[in-house]
Amino acid sequence: MRVLLGSGGFRSDERRENLRDEMKDFFGPSVSTILFIPYAVQDHDAYVVAMKQHGFDGGYNLVGIHEFPDARKALEQAEAVYVGGGNSFRLIDSIHKEGLIEPMRALVREGCPYMGVSAGTNVACPTMMTTNDMPIVYPSSFESFGLVSYQVNAHFYGGQIWAKHGEEFVEHFGETREDRIREYHERNPTPVIGLEEGAFLRNENGKVHLKHGSATLFQPGVPSKVLQSGFDISVSLGG
Amino acid sequence: MRVLLGSGGFRSDERRENLRDEMKDFFGPSVSTILFIPYAVQDHDAYVVAMKQHGFDGGYNLVGIHEFPDARKALEQAEAVYVGGGNSFRLIDSIHKEGLIEPMRALVREGCPYMGVSAGTNVACPTMMTTNDMPIVYPSSFESFGLVSYQVNAHFYGGQIWAKHGEEFVEHFGETREDRIREYHERNPTPVIGLEEGAFLRNENGKVHLKHGSATLFQPGVPSKVLQSGFDISVSLGG
Repeated sequence: MRVLLGSGGFRSDERRENLRDEMKDFFGPSVSTILFIPYAVQDHDAYVVAMKQHGFDGGYNLVGIHEFPDARKALEQAEAVYVGGGNSFRLIDSIHKEGLIEPMRALVREGCPYMGVSAGTNVACPTMMTTNDMPIVYPSSFESFGLVSYQVNAHFYGGQIWAKHGEEFVEHFGETREDRIREYHERNPTPVIGLEEGAFLRNENGKVHLKHGSATLFQPGVPSKVLQSGFDISVSLGG
Repeated sequence: MRVLLGSGGFRSDERRENLRDEMKDFFGPSVSTILFIPYAVQDHDAYVVAMKQHGFDGGYNLVGIHEFPDARKALEQAEAVYVGGGNSFRLIDSIHKEGLIEPMRALVREGCPYMGVSAGTNVACPTMMTTNDMPIVYPSSFESFGLVSYQVNAHFYGGQIWAKHGEEFVEHFGETREDRIREYHERNPTPVIGLEEGAFLRNENGKVHLKHGSATLFQPGVPSKVLQSGFDISVSLGG
């Protein structure tokens, strides 16, 4: 299976260039049209327009799945898939309502390349439980595509955060990402990769390559491990 | 109904003193034992011990609901209730499993004082959908006690956040709280109060007083409004 997972946070020229390079390298020259799944955002049409305007289409012909009368059929015929970011609860809710779990698994198993960013990365995992999003809808299940064997926490950072009051940095005492992932592991055994903004996980030929940034690997009962760009995580994940 | 809702983040001497003062003022001298609901944290016994050690008991006799053979019966007989913070998904999951929604509503309606902090504040709202927590379990419903007519987003801050790389502040581009609450309002009409760390909402005699910090009121279709300590929010909520 070929799966490219981005963390999001593409707000600098360098990161946007990395995104375009990764897309071109991942989808290659034989792909022309990518089926884009915009369900994580409320306004699907505006989302596709914005993706093109910001150059997040990587030069490919991005077509929204909502433009087809039958989402399931559109997915079954896709030559490449890109699931965009937004709210993961809204995204998984629509995925279940449209009945896309099994068709997506079959499609990607047959070799169709899958790209996800942020919420689109969450739903590539066994469940979307390591999301950072607000539960604005109650989905019928947290089960997701399960295209990879691990969970991703996108937009990851280590330690506390700071907010700004005027020009002053004020420390915030809500749970850190490490706290949240520890809580996740109190109830679930799946390894979690905390993926820094701008970074990618490229899954191909049984390998999981970390690109364009660092990540932290969390596994229950063992100390977390910071991984540098270029690392093949598949070995640490036990194959 | 008498409901005291804290945001959490009691990490300074001043904030801890405010917490103790609020508890004494809210529960008063006639209450001796407070039933503590520790379900948001994995280790219930350790949670009660920590609450006492940190002085978060306000000088009252805090007894964990898990120490009783029948949680529902223990709740029905409580003279005061305190629901602690942690993970809101774990908390609401246990609340539904123990069948505490209706007994809590009846109890508080009859005059029993309810105090919540962080996750305990979330579940006092109509739903726990404005939580910041990670969905580590799939609860049977997001429905909550509904002791107040609005939603609270605890540990609120305005704008972007920063993480620290060594001594350097690095801006983070994940969704802001404003983004998340806007997404919530795309699907739900209930007003949301973004409650700053250290602050309280005291609900009594039909009034909602903001204490010990500021808050931001979000209502669908109108600009958000920053509220200062001492403000009676009930007027802005339309009664």
